Amino acid sequence: MIRIFVTGGTFDKEYNELTGALAFKETHLPEMLRLGRSRVDASITTLMMIDSLEMTDADRALIVGHCRQAAEARILITHGTDTMVDTARALAAECGRTKTVVLTGAMIPYAFGSSDGLFNLGSALSFVQALPPGEWDKVRKNRETGVFEAI
Amino acid sequence: MIRIFVTGGTFDKEYNELTGALAFKETHLPEMLRLGRSRVDASITTLMMIDSLEMTDADRALIVGHCRQAAEARILITHGTDTMVDTARALAAECGRTKTVVLTGAMIPYAFGSSDGLFNLGSALSFVQALPPGEWDKVRKNRETGVFEAI
Amino acid sequence: MIRIFVTGGTFDKEYNELTGALAFKETHLPEMLRLGRSRVDASITTLMMIDSLEMTDADRALIVGHCRQAAEARILITHGTDTMVDTARALAAECGRTKTVVLTGAMIPYAFGSSDGLFNLGSALSFVQALPPGEWDKVRKNRETGVFEAI
Amino acid sequence: MIRIFVTGGTFDKEYNELTGALAFKETHLPEMLRLGRSRVDASITTLMMIDSLEMTDADRALIVGHCRQAAEARILITHGTDTMVDTARALAAECGRTKTVVLTGAMIPYAFGSSDGLFNLGSALSFVQALPPGEWDKVRKNRETGVFEAI
Repeated sequence: MIRIFVTGGTFDKEYNELTGALAFKETHLPEMLRLGRSRVDASITTLMMIDSLEMTDADRALIVGHCRQAAEARILITHGTDTMVDTARALAAECGRTKTVVLTGAMIPYAFGSSDGLFNLGSALSFVQALPPGEWDKVRKNRETGVFEAI
Repeated sequence: MIRIFVTGGTFDKEYNELTGALAFKETHLPEMLRLGRSRVDASITTLMMIDSLEMTDADRALIVGHCRQAAEARILITHGTDTMVDTARALAAECGRTKTVVLTGAMIPYAFGSSDGLFNLGSALSFVQALPPGEWDKVRKNRETGVFEAI
Repeated sequence: MIRIFVTGGTFDKEYNELTGALAFKETHLPEMLRLGRSRVDASITTLMMIDSLEMTDADRALIVGHCRQAAEARILITHGTDTMVDTARALAAECGRTKTVVLTGAMIPYAFGSSDGLFNLGSALSFVQALPPGEWDKVRKNRETGVFEAI
Repeated sequence: MIRIFVTGGTFDKEYNELTGALAFKETHLPEMLRLGRSRVDASITTLMMIDSLEMTDADRALIVGHCRQAAEARILITHGTDTMVDTARALAAECGRTKTVVLTGAMIPYAFGSSDGLFNLGSALSFVQALPPGEWDKVRKNRETGVFEAI
């Protein structure tokens, strides 16, 4: 069984038509898993709904705590891409050797139709099932190109 | 023949995946007319690409000037909804008796998939063909509900 | 007030994922009007859900009967494009002089995302409000190009 | 490096608006990988574009031959779901021990917007990278429910 922790990020942003701004409401994860006809046994917990640029050390501690306490050994976290690597570092120190934790996100909100979110979610769900605990520190986000690069 | 003036508005906003902000690039009007399989003889001119909350008196004077000078007697303007009524007032004073001018917009960007833009564009293109010059001052936008109301 | 009669057509076709075939379920009209944020006072009645190539004289008589008996003087009919002109002829003979009846359809199902249906529905709703009873026999569908032509 | 073989299936079906039927044109794989912002080093070869219910023994032999001759040890095949298990059996006998071959498909065409194809493609690309050669005969498609079941 897989535990999914939702933290927000571009993945789950929506357009608020009254204010004209981007905002968070509920997570789209259940809808996305249904659309993907996923048969994986997964339970979803929303820990926070924030832009990862606004994620604090306390937020990261909360995420790490939930990962440590989770009964599942395979954990998927949806996360904004901007500070995803920072959260990976925090997780690696605390539960990276005993659990397979995969972070995933999107460059375009799922709600905007042409999202990479569905693709990434399918990809992440496979990796979290197939990979052992392991590397986390071989990547960085290049914010100018919008691409994760190997380091 | 119909003249279409593009001024921006939610209609044409896009998501910039590098900055995570909403922004304008090119207008989607040609793509929308193609998608709607429109056979109407229309020519499109982009006057500006701005949020209507940022529209100045000079911008409105520019729009009015183009409407006055246009050879066509039927004019469609895409426009942000927030100050659409203000532009209608400026137009009414200058060319509202001789030309049929229809303003249209959207609450959700066309690029976000579930937009009202396609519906509104089809609607506006019909009205601009079928209606005579006429009323413009019987409506206001209720920004709390996001709905235009008769006054 | 506007009466909308649904008869099916490409407009409302869906993909049945179990059989892999196109089929009709419920009409998408209410969802489309909601998406278009339509404030028009309209009531929807589904008369049939069929491909217009399969429409019989009895089906057309049923449509004509409902148009004649409708309390509304403005009627919108969703209809497959292939025999739309035939139904227009039947309607013209029976109620074309007293009521404004507009037929609309789509080349691509609304459910398939890139549909012309939303655009056409917005367009038809405007025309049915703005136009008097009138011409119906100046058009034919060219099935090789998929385009309606003036005749 | 990953080799992707395209064989058609629901995945790649499109709506032909002139005939009103479902049909194959070009594969959507390159567009889907671009939309998913995939950075995986993959080369795509279209072997056929057919419904898997019409796949013959000769077609399967062709697929098996390409898998055997491929320089890559990791191969992804897009395939109609109805006879996917039959092709898996043919592949297992010929190259199932030396190469990781993953078959994927969709219940709804990618072109129809709400497809499971993007999710499945992301999932399959991850599994083909992460899994060793292995089991193929533990699943069947239940055509009444549209779901693959473990056997």
